[in-house]
Amino acid sequence: MKVHPFSSTGRSSVVLGKESYYGGDFIVAHVKLDKDALKNVVPRIFEPDGEALFSLREFVTVMGDRTDLLYEEPMLTQYNESAIGVKVRYDGGVYQYYPFMWVDKEFAVVRGWLNGYPKKMANIQLTRFHPLLPQISEPKPGVVVGGYVTRGSGLLFKIKVTLREKVEKPPTFGPTLLIRDYPAEGEGETSVLELVRLDLQDLKVTDVWRGDVEIEIGKGINDEVDNFKVTEKLGGYYYKIGFRIPGTKLIKKLSESELF
Amino acid sequence: MKVHPFSSTGRSSVVLGKESYYGGDFIVAHVKLDKDALKNVVPRIFEPDGEALFSLREFVTVMGDRTDLLYEEPMLTQYNESAIGVKVRYDGGVYQYYPFMWVDKEFAVVRGWLNGYPKKMANIQLTRFHPLLPQISEPKPGVVVGGYVTRGSGLLFKIKVTLREKVEKPPTFGPTLLIRDYPAEGEGETSVLELVRLDLQDLKVTDVWRGDVEIEIGKGINDEVDNFKVTEKLGGYYYKIGFRIPGTKLIKKLSESELF
Amino acid sequence: MKVHPFSSTGRSSVVLGKESYYGGDFIVAHVKLDKDALKNVVPRIFEPDGEALFSLREFVTVMGDRTDLLYEEPMLTQYNESAIGVKVRYDGGVYQYYPFMWVDKEFAVVRGWLNGYPKKMANIQLTRFHPLLPQISEPKPGVVVGGYVTRGSGLLFKIKVTLREKVEKPPTFGPTLLIRDYPAEGEGETSVLELVRLDLQDLKVTDVWRGDVEIEIGKGINDEVDNFKVTEKLGGYYYKIGFRIPGTKLIKKLSESELF
Amino acid sequence: MKVHPFSSTGRSSVVLGKESYYGGDFIVAHVKLDKDALKNVVPRIFEPDGEALFSLREFVTVMGDRTDLLYEEPMLTQYNESAIGVKVRYDGGVYQYYPFMWVDKEFAVVRGWLNGYPKKMANIQLTRFHPLLPQISEPKPGVVVGGYVTRGSGLLFKIKVTLREKVEKPPTFGPTLLIRDYPAEGEGETSVLELVRLDLQDLKVTDVWRGDVEIEIGKGINDEVDNFKVTEKLGGYYYKIGFRIPGTKLIKKLSESELF
Repeated sequence: MKVHPFSSTGRSSVVLGKESYYGGDFIVAHVKLDKDALKNVVPRIFEPDGEALFSLREFVTVMGDRTDLLYEEPMLTQYNESAIGVKVRYDGGVYQYYPFMWVDKEFAVVRGWLNGYPKKMANIQLTRFHPLLPQISEPKPGVVVGGYVTRGSGLLFKIKVTLREKVEKPPTFGPTLLIRDYPAEGEGETSVLELVRLDLQDLKVTDVWRGDVEIEIGKGINDEVDNFKVTEKLGGYYYKIGFRIPGTKLIKKLSESELF
Repeated sequence: MKVHPFSSTGRSSVVLGKESYYGGDFIVAHVKLDKDALKNVVPRIFEPDGEALFSLREFVTVMGDRTDLLYEEPMLTQYNESAIGVKVRYDGGVYQYYPFMWVDKEFAVVRGWLNGYPKKMANIQLTRFHPLLPQISEPKPGVVVGGYVTRGSGLLFKIKVTLREKVEKPPTFGPTLLIRDYPAEGEGETSVLELVRLDLQDLKVTDVWRGDVEIEIGKGINDEVDNFKVTEKLGGYYYKIGFRIPGTKLIKKLSESELF
Repeated sequence: MKVHPFSSTGRSSVVLGKESYYGGDFIVAHVKLDKDALKNVVPRIFEPDGEALFSLREFVTVMGDRTDLLYEEPMLTQYNESAIGVKVRYDGGVYQYYPFMWVDKEFAVVRGWLNGYPKKMANIQLTRFHPLLPQISEPKPGVVVGGYVTRGSGLLFKIKVTLREKVEKPPTFGPTLLIRDYPAEGEGETSVLELVRLDLQDLKVTDVWRGDVEIEIGKGINDEVDNFKVTEKLGGYYYKIGFRIPGTKLIKKLSESELF
Repeated sequence: MKVHPFSSTGRSSVVLGKESYYGGDFIVAHVKLDKDALKNVVPRIFEPDGEALFSLREFVTVMGDRTDLLYEEPMLTQYNESAIGVKVRYDGGVYQYYPFMWVDKEFAVVRGWLNGYPKKMANIQLTRFHPLLPQISEPKPGVVVGGYVTRGSGLLFKIKVTLREKVEKPPTFGPTLLIRDYPAEGEGETSVLELVRLDLQDLKVTDVWRGDVEIEIGKGINDEVDNFKVTEKLGGYYYKIGFRIPGTKLIKKLSESELF
């Protein structure tokens, strides 16, 4: 796998290594959305169920075997992420599809694009715990966590979760379906539009808390999040997660006309 | 052309429209480089001549017909860029190839990747003129301009140009050759590796000044700029430039083994 | 004048030199505000008239004799600023007072605090012209300019001006009154609270355009801009400005009880 | 205590509340420095011992009673910090003095200036642990942590610590001496230059690890860190810390001539 910028060693690539490792803290709003409006942001090959997860995430990550970056260039091992994942039916199965995802580092943008994640950059802020700060030392009943994502002048969404009880696991919608996308820009060039499946490997989830959720959805001139209209709030979550992403599995090639 | 994030309107895409318009201010170092070291960062299908242009650029840009962004979301119409362009021979012609290019906005990263530019994000700073600031009101003999690009902890390069005289045009190396790159991540997925040619349209260059140049090249843990070893300083430049990029033209599909 | 960080040379100070030079591009909304709500953000020693200027500004600046920074460290010579200036009566005269001001560089924050400007940092974006970009080559009738300031998750204000005609000068409210502020934190420490007057020196204003204005005022959890309620839009402006600030002149020492 | 921007509620102040709470993760290099060069950055009222601590810090913080910001505006509760603290003798006692300190949020700059910390803004990156990321799940023997601070084009310093053993506590130099600084800018205005003492309250330190240290000190055009010349490496540390800062205690008023 050769990724720009090219060099004889491969050490200048914006994405280093074929697989990546992730440890993250998640704040999540589990909601039901208006299904009609969703059709504007979910390709018609998928049948949205209405359930959705809005999440704010703080990650530590390692690309391939580059553990040296953890101390030599921490900037390339830390990022915040925000995502809107919706539950969809496709070909008889139940999956998660991400109409939107934002991060705050460019290596995460390009790494994600190779998988098919629709990543942009944005300003993502979320509560961080610290064991020696009494006001936010650890998750426990009554503690409030939250945060938001803005891009340019627009507040895209904001979440607040009041923790109530420790639970076994957070809601999930099955494996992730993504669409790898690299359009041609000239005659004869290749256009990639591939439906792929991504399964998180070595998945571990700990410290899962459930609570009451509040969510505010805004809008963006280049981020049509106003297509997400909450009809029911199902719960809020905080948890820690670890996993590995080794790549994707091709399901089928798509044509543009299958999207909308 | 469908670009993530997808929506029925297309208004959430990180790249808006098929062609883009650019107005830029350039500070440039024209140098000769050691040809042997260049082979580590220039694919072997190209024969480097040794001449190179290190540039720092401040752009105002419009994507497609989205002139509304100029006032509704200026963030999506302004960015800084830094580039290392080298003169290469390919198939009997003379061209420019960019081993490295950095910008400070993500829309410019993705827009560039679709063309084949090897863009990453970095911190790019360069002199800006202001007509009412006496110390830097306009280019004239003796005025010094400069700047640098850093990424993470590394200073990648720094330029200083002392303007001497107005000239007709800056040095150029012919049309640009790029390699469109979108590697497969799973079995059966498409890998794009396409040599393409990009010709700037409606090109205008004004206010061209030539002068003495100083250049310092550093290194980066993920940016192997230490492969550029200056053997001769040919001159420094400041100028304004305007152009349009409507897309690229396929020259040929490449295999990974043709790179290094 | 010794400013932190201290050193024997003075070359590490965050503010360099006693006076500073400025060249700026301004986009301004001239409005009338509800006077009652203004009392929450204007100290009661001032009598607000209701007229106000909301502005977005892009500056190039030189601190003292440090013209070398223009090319050695351009980061320390460029910043964006946003300000809310209100017309007030004080002791029989008419002045401008700034309840809020935001910038995007820390040297401008501290330099401003020494003068008495209430500066914070924020994300400030505004239209930039480029002579070789046809869509925004220069101010002329019908051209729209605009921008906004956000801080954290809040849009503080957004302006749009449709240029109509070149005029001789923009609206101003007289000299600026500021309150130098450095509170004590322990017994016996000095508290500074000084009403001072600041007069821009060597003031030049060019390329002044008047037009129609739209303004949206938001709110911020730490920026109570919801106290600015527009009752009338008087006009929008774009212009270039240059000036020098050599310091301030003491009018009188204040006590906290004179503020609200 | 009235801090800009002023309002009737006080809720727009850049610093909220009289005291602040801190929870931090520290990576520290303990070294001996050349005493002669230190005299350029340590006021002559202090006698430097040569011992110094270079640290990189990630903080979660609460200003006053504003725990709501932890979830409503996390941006105002998190920041990175970098500091150079030196051991000094003053009036028969042993203290810590900070010639330089950098942070990456403006509220921390101003909050610090009121205490007398010489804060600027910079890019500060340091290793972060995550319990579910196998490569950096927790401190243990052999784990490497590190990071750096850059400002503009300059790498100011970079640290790497290979953890060896858990120890009881990290090195400290006694209470902190600071110089509150707010110079006059016009005739009759007050100049504050006050030597104060700051004692951390409710101090807790946990998870202290000692190890081998590497340190690289660079230079900055506006940050004269080249005055710190390491003569001996005494050890590296990683630990967690919590404390409260309620203000400072005046020791004595200084004149500029007592500094250098």
